[in-house]
Amino acid sequence: MADNEFGIRPGEVAVALPETFDAGVYFIGRIRTPWTRREECPKNARESDAVCTIEVDPRYAAALTGVESCSHLLVLYWMDKSRRDLVLQVPRTYGEQRGTFALRSPARPNPIATSVATLLQIAGNTLSVVGLDCLDGTPLIDIKPYFASTDSVPDAVVGWHKARKGA
Amino acid sequence: MADNEFGIRPGEVAVALPETFDAGVYFIGRIRTPWTRREECPKNARESDAVCTIEVDPRYAAALTGVESCSHLLVLYWMDKSRRDLVLQVPRTYGEQRGTFALRSPARPNPIATSVATLLQIAGNTLSVVGLDCLDGTPLIDIKPYFASTDSVPDAVVGWHKARKGA
Repeated sequence: MADNEFGIRPGEVAVALPETFDAGVYFIGRIRTPWTRREECPKNARESDAVCTIEVDPRYAAALTGVESCSHLLVLYWMDKSRRDLVLQVPRTYGEQRGTFALRSPARPNPIATSVATLLQIAGNTLSVVGLDCLDGTPLIDIKPYFASTDSVPDAVVGWHKARKGA
Repeated sequence: MADNEFGIRPGEVAVALPETFDAGVYFIGRIRTPWTRREECPKNARESDAVCTIEVDPRYAAALTGVESCSHLLVLYWMDKSRRDLVLQVPRTYGEQRGTFALRSPARPNPIATSVATLLQIAGNTLSVVGLDCLDGTPLIDIKPYFASTDSVPDAVVGWHKARKGA
């Protein structure tokens, strides 16, 4: 648990993780954002219109061919500062205990974040986007085209969240 | 490249991958689908209304608390049969060369797929969903609540795809 820089709050529950990994991830670039401390990060990606920069490793530069035609991208990144053993969490914002898979918290068995970013511009290996919420220097692990036909569900509901807002 | 079961087509370009991984992934469950060969899989997740089953490892069962209130889930899985070194690909469906990051092909440096699934039911550690397109036995790596407020962009456009359809 050497990478655990965040403590456990009352009501949170951790499990013993497996002793070995099942697969390996390559960091394929870095994300540059205005935020260097966790408290500064927007609570969610639509809360900020800050322009962030995605620097793709030159090794993968050719893989960007055609990305310029996308209005929005699914950006996957590795929340490398998060603990991975929490199954129940009490997010500060809500103060209620919930399962990790019902939350978008970075603390999860595989600390992969997915954000929908608006693409502004590509210059060489560098993408300018709006819609990320991570710390400066966060490792990039994937970029995908966002297809409204399969990725957009405007009427989707997260019941526990809606109940809170309605309360 | 022992895990490469698919060949390279004319127009496709591979790069040398890094010699070591940067982080490790845990498989946290398995996805059960009706499809046992790649050719049988739906071309995209909305093409099929087959009910698929997500079996979460009992270790993480508590992490499902609250998930039952979600109408839709973001499901992340590991396309463990795919090669990871292609930067330019010529998908059979399109027959045109495009960058990996402009495609949803499972072949990518980190073979992580993200699908929006409709949640039907949870029984113990087992979720019944509609909207997956992967092979039976595919390793699960994450489940997230789908928030329309941040994940849904109905007017997003993938330019190259739209141009093809308009042609």
